[in-house]
Amino acid sequence: MKIRNQIAALVRPIEEDLLSGAAEISLRAITIFQAVLNLDTTTEVNLLRATLIETAQALLSAQPAMAPLFQLCNQVLSSAEKAKSADTLRIDCLKTLTAYEKKLCDDVAKIAEHVLDVIPPGELIFAYSFSSTVVSCLLSARARGRYFRVVCTESMPSMEGRKLASQLAQGKIEVIYTYDTAMGLVLPNCSVAFMGCDCVGAPGLVNKAGSLLLALACKDMGIPLYCLASTDKFVSEDRLFQFENHERPGSEVWRDAPEGVRVLNRQFELIPVNYISGIITEKGMIHENQVEEQIALSRVHEALALSSV
Amino acid sequence: MKIRNQIAALVRPIEEDLLSGAAEISLRAITIFQAVLNLDTTTEVNLLRATLIETAQALLSAQPAMAPLFQLCNQVLSSAEKAKSADTLRIDCLKTLTAYEKKLCDDVAKIAEHVLDVIPPGELIFAYSFSSTVVSCLLSARARGRYFRVVCTESMPSMEGRKLASQLAQGKIEVIYTYDTAMGLVLPNCSVAFMGCDCVGAPGLVNKAGSLLLALACKDMGIPLYCLASTDKFVSEDRLFQFENHERPGSEVWRDAPEGVRVLNRQFELIPVNYISGIITEKGMIHENQVEEQIALSRVHEALALSSV
Repeated sequence: MKIRNQIAALVRPIEEDLLSGAAEISLRAITIFQAVLNLDTTTEVNLLRATLIETAQALLSAQPAMAPLFQLCNQVLSSAEKAKSADTLRIDCLKTLTAYEKKLCDDVAKIAEHVLDVIPPGELIFAYSFSSTVVSCLLSARARGRYFRVVCTESMPSMEGRKLASQLAQGKIEVIYTYDTAMGLVLPNCSVAFMGCDCVGAPGLVNKAGSLLLALACKDMGIPLYCLASTDKFVSEDRLFQFENHERPGSEVWRDAPEGVRVLNRQFELIPVNYISGIITEKGMIHENQVEEQIALSRVHEALALSSV
Repeated sequence: MKIRNQIAALVRPIEEDLLSGAAEISLRAITIFQAVLNLDTTTEVNLLRATLIETAQALLSAQPAMAPLFQLCNQVLSSAEKAKSADTLRIDCLKTLTAYEKKLCDDVAKIAEHVLDVIPPGELIFAYSFSSTVVSCLLSARARGRYFRVVCTESMPSMEGRKLASQLAQGKIEVIYTYDTAMGLVLPNCSVAFMGCDCVGAPGLVNKAGSLLLALACKDMGIPLYCLASTDKFVSEDRLFQFENHERPGSEVWRDAPEGVRVLNRQFELIPVNYISGIITEKGMIHENQVEEQIALSRVHEALALSSV
């Protein structure tokens, strides 16, 4: 099988994955890069570099909204720039992949520390959609003896709320589950709300549709809403709006819609940062006015730069 | 079969009906009262009166949130008070039923007149959940040559949004359909939003869960949101809060939820009247400060009075 076909076969499950959060997808992408570095046995450094670029582009076109995936690809390509031989390139990239995996875990542990400060003991907590960061932070708080219950909703149309509910229940957290629009019915009983996100930029944060409604309801009811996200999720404005390209088939929402009914299935939306109480990162709480300085810290590899419109 | 069992058999489908709006349910209740008046062949006026009270109570316990159903029962019982013979009682009640049916239709026609004034030509309109009043008003506007498109969402967990979409599409109105939490994604393109309701009281209006999120989003985005409802839906505060008794089985939301996950299935919620732009009734637009005077106009039959807590 040609390397191009192998890349396509490896990336396809990432495209089909509607249930995983951005951090989980990045962990799987690390495995894909490791596999590609093994599968492509070329001794030509430029050919291997081209393979990596192709892998990165395929991954980002499969999941255009997920910033940590973009950061991973960006770091892999940047670390592949200097090597003079294919072997050195392999070593450099594998180092980057290992370091990135370690950072993903370390960041979540640091975020969990900060989250512990805002979980009131004995209260009801709202969590939306699926975010492995949110799950890890809640499980970590529970493991450290903090008692609380979690309310979550199904997150149509992919229903990743069930994955959230199941993982929390497995971790011995009592869960109350309902359908999405019952949010307004259950939120008045909650003391705090959490969500993950796919990326953060100056115009706002991108997350599963419904997050804006959650933010509006929390604002109206005076409930603090925090987004839990490592600074890996901070991206430039053009990268942020890539989520608009992520449209799924309408048949996933209504298989046999009658004539005259067009079914729309866009799953991500933008939430202005000032609509929520703050973003809890590995560096602590970040507010609206600090978002731009985080974004300025990163440099984008030319193969991943977006062409201007 | 005893009349008590016959009443139960007639009312059961009303309890199971999760797709119909309050006006439709009232039309079906008219048929049930007509059937009961035929099935109970007693010549004892007090026995027949007791049968009607039982029917009314069964209907209201099946659908505690729907005000027009309450008004119908209330009017039937009130018109059954004076008769000295069973035959006169039958005649009085059948007259009331016919008059109520006519009023339901007349009211919708009047509401449709007022709605026409707020439908901007050529624009996108949002409609939530299922309301036969909303469908009638939109179809009437279309029949009168007003062109517009409608966006609606599925309305989980009963998905009565599909019924709305299908009926509008049958009436040659172009429909865009999506899942509920995508509301925030589609609303910015809409010029006006409509919903029905089950009842209106001084504390607010009761409608399908999700209406509060819709109201918050419309407020945030500056989109006028109107509730279309005849004044039959105006009820006292104790009657209004009957919707809180309407809890459905959790298995309708998640059939095989894992241990540790409790599934909540409450389908109605309260929306403060000042969260929406106005209530369009057969008497024209009604605002928050006019709600109480509408409620004061009605008198409740003692058999339907709620016992104080």
